[in-house]
Amino acid sequence: MWITKTIKKTQKILEKYRNKTIGFVPTMGALHEGHLSLIRRCVKENQFSVVSIFVNPIQFGRGEDFSSYPRPFKKDIELCKKEGVNLVFAPSYEEMYPDEFSVYVEEISLSKFLCGKFRPSHFKGVCTVVAKLFNIIRPRIAYFGQKDYQQAQIIKRMVDNLNFNIKIKVLPIVRDKDGLALSSRNWYLNPQERKQAVCLYESLKIAKKMIEDGEREAKKIIFGMKKTINKFNLAKIQYIEVADAYTLEPTPFIKKDVVIALAVFIGKARLIDNMLVKFKKKKIIFKL
Amino acid sequence: MWITKTIKKTQKILEKYRNKTIGFVPTMGALHEGHLSLIRRCVKENQFSVVSIFVNPIQFGRGEDFSSYPRPFKKDIELCKKEGVNLVFAPSYEEMYPDEFSVYVEEISLSKFLCGKFRPSHFKGVCTVVAKLFNIIRPRIAYFGQKDYQQAQIIKRMVDNLNFNIKIKVLPIVRDKDGLALSSRNWYLNPQERKQAVCLYESLKIAKKMIEDGEREAKKIIFGMKKTINKFNLAKIQYIEVADAYTLEPTPFIKKDVVIALAVFIGKARLIDNMLVKFKKKKIIFKL
Repeated sequence: MWITKTIKKTQKILEKYRNKTIGFVPTMGALHEGHLSLIRRCVKENQFSVVSIFVNPIQFGRGEDFSSYPRPFKKDIELCKKEGVNLVFAPSYEEMYPDEFSVYVEEISLSKFLCGKFRPSHFKGVCTVVAKLFNIIRPRIAYFGQKDYQQAQIIKRMVDNLNFNIKIKVLPIVRDKDGLALSSRNWYLNPQERKQAVCLYESLKIAKKMIEDGEREAKKIIFGMKKTINKFNLAKIQYIEVADAYTLEPTPFIKKDVVIALAVFIGKARLIDNMLVKFKKKKIIFKL
Repeated sequence: MWITKTIKKTQKILEKYRNKTIGFVPTMGALHEGHLSLIRRCVKENQFSVVSIFVNPIQFGRGEDFSSYPRPFKKDIELCKKEGVNLVFAPSYEEMYPDEFSVYVEEISLSKFLCGKFRPSHFKGVCTVVAKLFNIIRPRIAYFGQKDYQQAQIIKRMVDNLNFNIKIKVLPIVRDKDGLALSSRNWYLNPQERKQAVCLYESLKIAKKMIEDGEREAKKIIFGMKKTINKFNLAKIQYIEVADAYTLEPTPFIKKDVVIALAVFIGKARLIDNMLVKFKKKKIIFKL
C-alpha cells in the first residue's frame, strides 16, 4: 500500500494505474465501521482503491472542533492496509492550501438548508476540498455515507453541475448496537453521554412509527421527535427538519420523498442523523 | 471536424482520443486573429484540438452586452475547419446550465482588482464555465490570450488551487495595424469610434516611453495616459491601473514586474488593453 503526502507523488503513482478503474473514499480519518463499509465496497468494485485522510480546516467554522478532531493516523493506516486499499493520500494543510490559495467551489441552493443554516461556510469548504481531491485522484467512482445526507446531495450536485466524470455512490448509515449512527465525533462522548446519544436514533424511530401510523404533518412529527429527545437531559437540539429529499427545502406535509434530519448536541459533541422516507408505488420505504 | 452541441456526445467522441494529446481553446466565438493565433498554436502543439464556442451568460452583468454580443456561428465554424481544429463544442445555455444549477467556482483575491472592481461577478462566471469546460474536455494544454490578462491570471490560479492537471499557455496580444488590440467587441465600433479606439494602445505607448525615460511613479504614468486618452472625445475611461503582475494589487512605484491595464468605453463598446512590464537582470521588457 502506498502512503503519499504530496499531490505530485500521488499523481505520479496514479499515472501508472490510469488504465485501471480507480475508486475513491475521501475521509477525515478516525476511521470507523461506517468508513470501512465505504472502503470495502470501493475495494470490491474497483481495481485500484484510494483513501484520502485529511482533516480539512476550511470546512470547520470558528469555535468548531477542528483542533480537537481525532487523528489516530497509525490506526487508520493499519485499517486501510487490512482492507486492501492501494493508496492512502494524507496531505498536510500546506500541501492542500498553499499561501496563494484563493479559489473556492460553492453550492448555493442545497447548502442553505439543514446543517448549512448553522454552519454557513461548511459546505463551501467541503466542495472545495472534494473538487481538489477529485482532480488529484480522478476516480471513476467516489463513495460517501448517507449519514452526511446533505453533504452527499451537495457533492452529487457539484459533480453534475461542474461535469466531473465521476459516479457518486451513497451507502447506508452504519449504526452501533443501540442504533447510534457511527461518527468520528462519537469519540468525544463520555460514557454517560454515549448512553444518551441514542436519542437521535430513538427520535427517528418515533418519526417512522408516526408515519407508519398515517401521520403526514411535519410539525407533528417534529413535535414527537422533540418530546423524545427532551427526555434525555444531556441533549440539546440544534434542529429537526422534514425536508424534500432532493431540494432539501422544508416541507410541511409528507407527500413525496423526504429526509428527516436532525442535529443534536450531546455535551460538546454535535451529532447528526437522518432517515430517508421514500414513496414507491404507494409503499413507503424507510432508510435509516 | 466534429461539431457537438451536447456534453455527452462531446465526451463520447473524446473518449476515443484520450490516448492523444488534447489541446483546448475556449472562446465565446466571433473569432478574430487573436483567437486564431491561439487556435494555430493549439493545432501545432497537440494531436487533437478542441475549440469551444459559448457566449457564457453568467459572466455578463446586468446591462452588459450579453444579448448584443456577436454570434457569427457559421463563419466561426469555417475558420475552425480551415485551421485544422478537430472538434468544435458549441453547447446551448440549457446544456451548460440546466434548471438545477447551483455550483460556482470563485477566485476571491485576484478578482477584486482591475476589471473585477467594475464587473463584480464576471470572473466567477468565467471560472465556473472554464472549470466545466476543463472537466468536459480534459485537455493537456489550454490556451488564453494576454489581452484578458486578469482572466488568464485567475484561470492559472484556479488550475493551481483546484489541482486541474492542465497547462495554461498565455499568448501575446494580436493588434490591428494601428495598434488596437483585436477583440470581438471591436465589432460594436462605428467608423468614427474605430478610429478613436486606438487611444488605449496610444496611452500604453506613452506609458512605455515614460518608463523608458526613467519614470517609476504610477500616478504620473497614469496621468500621462489619461492625458493621451482625453484627447479623444468619444473615449470615456473606466480605469487605468498599474498593478503587481502576479497579485494584481495596485502598486505606487514600478520596482518589480507590473501590468499596466485599462478599460475605456468608446461609445457603447467597453474595450480593455494592457502592457506587461518585466524586470529581467536590470533590463526592462515590455509586452504589449
